[in-house]
Amino acid sequence: MIPSSHLSKLYQGQKLSLLTDLYQLTMAQGYWKNGMADREAVFHLYFRKAPFGGHYALACGLALAADFLQQFHFGVNEIQYLGTLRGSDGKALFSESFLNFLQRMEFTCDIDAIPEGTVVFPNTPLIRVRGPLVQAQLIETALLTLVNFSTLIATKASRVVRAAQGDAVLEFGLRRAQGADGGVSASRAAYIGGCTGTSNVLAGLLFRIPVKGTHAHSWVMCYDSELESFEAYANAMPNNCIFLVDTYDTEQGVRHAIKVSRQLLEKGYQPLGIRLDSGDLTALSKLARELLDEAGLADLAIVASNDLNEHRIAALKESGAEISVWGVGTQLATAYDQAALGGVYKLAALKDRDGQWQDKVKLSEDAIKTSIPGLQQVQRYFHESGQPLGDQIIDEKITNTPHQIIPTLTDQRQHINGGQAENLLQAIFRSGKLVYNFPSIYDIRAFSIRQQALFQQIELANYPVGLSPELDQRRKMLIKQHAHA
Amino acid sequence: MIPSSHLSKLYQGQKLSLLTDLYQLTMAQGYWKNGMADREAVFHLYFRKAPFGGHYALACGLALAADFLQQFHFGVNEIQYLGTLRGSDGKALFSESFLNFLQRMEFTCDIDAIPEGTVVFPNTPLIRVRGPLVQAQLIETALLTLVNFSTLIATKASRVVRAAQGDAVLEFGLRRAQGADGGVSASRAAYIGGCTGTSNVLAGLLFRIPVKGTHAHSWVMCYDSELESFEAYANAMPNNCIFLVDTYDTEQGVRHAIKVSRQLLEKGYQPLGIRLDSGDLTALSKLARELLDEAGLADLAIVASNDLNEHRIAALKESGAEISVWGVGTQLATAYDQAALGGVYKLAALKDRDGQWQDKVKLSEDAIKTSIPGLQQVQRYFHESGQPLGDQIIDEKITNTPHQIIPTLTDQRQHINGGQAENLLQAIFRSGKLVYNFPSIYDIRAFSIRQQALFQQIELANYPVGLSPELDQRRKMLIKQHAHA
Repeated sequence: MIPSSHLSKLYQGQKLSLLTDLYQLTMAQGYWKNGMADREAVFHLYFRKAPFGGHYALACGLALAADFLQQFHFGVNEIQYLGTLRGSDGKALFSESFLNFLQRMEFTCDIDAIPEGTVVFPNTPLIRVRGPLVQAQLIETALLTLVNFSTLIATKASRVVRAAQGDAVLEFGLRRAQGADGGVSASRAAYIGGCTGTSNVLAGLLFRIPVKGTHAHSWVMCYDSELESFEAYANAMPNNCIFLVDTYDTEQGVRHAIKVSRQLLEKGYQPLGIRLDSGDLTALSKLARELLDEAGLADLAIVASNDLNEHRIAALKESGAEISVWGVGTQLATAYDQAALGGVYKLAALKDRDGQWQDKVKLSEDAIKTSIPGLQQVQRYFHESGQPLGDQIIDEKITNTPHQIIPTLTDQRQHINGGQAENLLQAIFRSGKLVYNFPSIYDIRAFSIRQQALFQQIELANYPVGLSPELDQRRKMLIKQHAHA
Repeated sequence: MIPSSHLSKLYQGQKLSLLTDLYQLTMAQGYWKNGMADREAVFHLYFRKAPFGGHYALACGLALAADFLQQFHFGVNEIQYLGTLRGSDGKALFSESFLNFLQRMEFTCDIDAIPEGTVVFPNTPLIRVRGPLVQAQLIETALLTLVNFSTLIATKASRVVRAAQGDAVLEFGLRRAQGADGGVSASRAAYIGGCTGTSNVLAGLLFRIPVKGTHAHSWVMCYDSELESFEAYANAMPNNCIFLVDTYDTEQGVRHAIKVSRQLLEKGYQPLGIRLDSGDLTALSKLARELLDEAGLADLAIVASNDLNEHRIAALKESGAEISVWGVGTQLATAYDQAALGGVYKLAALKDRDGQWQDKVKLSEDAIKTSIPGLQQVQRYFHESGQPLGDQIIDEKITNTPHQIIPTLTDQRQHINGGQAENLLQAIFRSGKLVYNFPSIYDIRAFSIRQQALFQQIELANYPVGLSPELDQRRKMLIKQHAHA
């Protein structure tokens, strides 16, 4: 049902229900003791600012979140551990009856979410959780961890891929990734973001995404000469030859690669290219291209690596570098220039004792940090040509009829002329059961690439994103009420 | 045997042998086909530049690496997957006979490493691998992933803890961590680096490290008033009370916390403190301290959070902020200002066909990037007072008698007067079997704190780190040979 996930395999024999902050559990006991555990609540997961100084993000991580939620359960091991925790008086932090409640708890929430690969904007919910307060609270941290990181890396990948202007981009980041799963999750998100493959073989096995790689400097160093090492490699792996040419002297390395590539052709094999991993990549790639073309090897690729990122790739393209495949490691797999997406998860509505919805906002001195109330849905308007016109957040509790006016979150109303609206949030879980048919990772990637192409036409800084007039008014009223409280 | 690890539980039913770059496997097939698979090789894992603009790192991740190595094996699932990969001619990338070899391969390397918690310096090996070339190559990526990240976070934690000048530091980063294991590994490394606990409950269960947490803004928002919410929390969790006071108005929040804390005291419970999560932390903490002290609550802690890092903590301490516990999240768990340690893994020696050791260097235009040959050991010299005097890298193939002269890597010889030398690299695996008795995580943390205290006395920028005269000469000779080749 969730073909491209892997989380349920994490930590053998260990439920991931404890992949959470302790305060979620202490609050859970509090709600339970105070009779509020089953109060119906609505939380939304969203980010306030697009990463990397940009205007958008590429939603990613939903399959991991769904995998986590499907397994959400407190087992004997977790309950026993929680029973060992102590409070300020040396007595148990959690009562036995609460732990019994936890162990018997079954996940019953409704989850709506924006599918992976969708271009999304600040302040719009990526995930909406509706269900018993105690459950919605307990899943907060894991949802944030999984969606924050995958969305961050998919977005970074989309920026790198755009900088490469249609060239292939390979993700090479595992050795510098943040932990084993940091690497594995990054490979998945980078592929969804538009990379053509990864060096990470475990990600290849878990997600069936293309894996790439040939040889390293150490291969060359194991032989008495570079030429000998290339010949040995070609002999051993004739159908996977990209020669790394910069171990000693790059120009000489290219000449050695040419010699061995021609030998391969004579034997009926197709050599794939060369790789540059140091030095002036513009000058060296131009030189290499010239030498390869002269030698009748025009279809050999020039792969470049060495601490690349979106900006260096853009500069290299600008300078006319003759590079056709980009290997991007550390800076992609860790989103080095902004290593975290600041996604948050906020309470937006709670039923009171009488079963009436109460809208909730979290105030902040910074107006943009004040949260949005309601049971939110995101409506994306499209021109009949298919061009997106704007995103409007509505409250499904009030109405779900489409509107034609979108006030932005900055109070400036923007009118959308015509167009049809589509709901971005889709039903993923109903009463705790998975109801969404996850696409294959290939379909997610293809969708992501179409989404990126769709939004590439649009000036994103001015793309309207805002609340419906009703929701906007409701939010302002709530802020005023708190100010007077 | 490895009490504080968790990696063997990662990805249920899935060997981590594929947590590697594809080129390690294509090279492995190459070495195997060319009859070099069992040639004895030496590789070292080291970093070239200390992270965060500093001069040292805190070694961490060895237990994870050992856990990985103990399980290192290619199972049926992995072999089947590798058999599906295709080369440029559409035929199998890996031959059946090579895959049979892989599946039968048993790990037989000798591994020496510097224990976790040790203060270490650039260019000194943290891990030395000696064994069959094919095995030493296949474990490269995983060793780098595991040791790079843990060392990065332990080092960051040590810097944050130093900035806090003896105050407790809690790691709160899970929700922004890079994947599930990014969070879990970060919590372990941060504890080893000197943090007193984490909010991450799964890390608490897996490593038995202290977990901390009370309540969030959402708790307050679920009640009609802040005071009511504090009373409800105190009622439910009387032995775990730290009130978050900034949901609406911080000064009012402190007054509400005082009221409920006094009620707790009257009932015989010990309230623990308040938490500030926004605004001017210096001014607010001073105000809160005053109000708490006036109310006879001088022993209540003031916990601060909100995007803290080592620099902000230092500035807050400087400005006289009355904060006694620091909650550090994103910036610690992702090492936000430098999200990766650039650790590398380089071939340093290889036996030739006749069983004679050949030293190896990887050249680079940048002299410091040229690798160090030999079968390295790190000798740390100590004054009889216990003060470290310098680290010398020697080649155990040549000699292992201690030297009294340390030339630095920048060619300036520094003489060490007197002192006894200790070997930093310790035997971890012999012929593939674990021979090291891993300390408990509490002992590792205690050792790390002693190490940090030891080096706090020393001006690290001038701490001598270099090669023994013999090794230095050998390296220069090899560089010259390559230049003439």
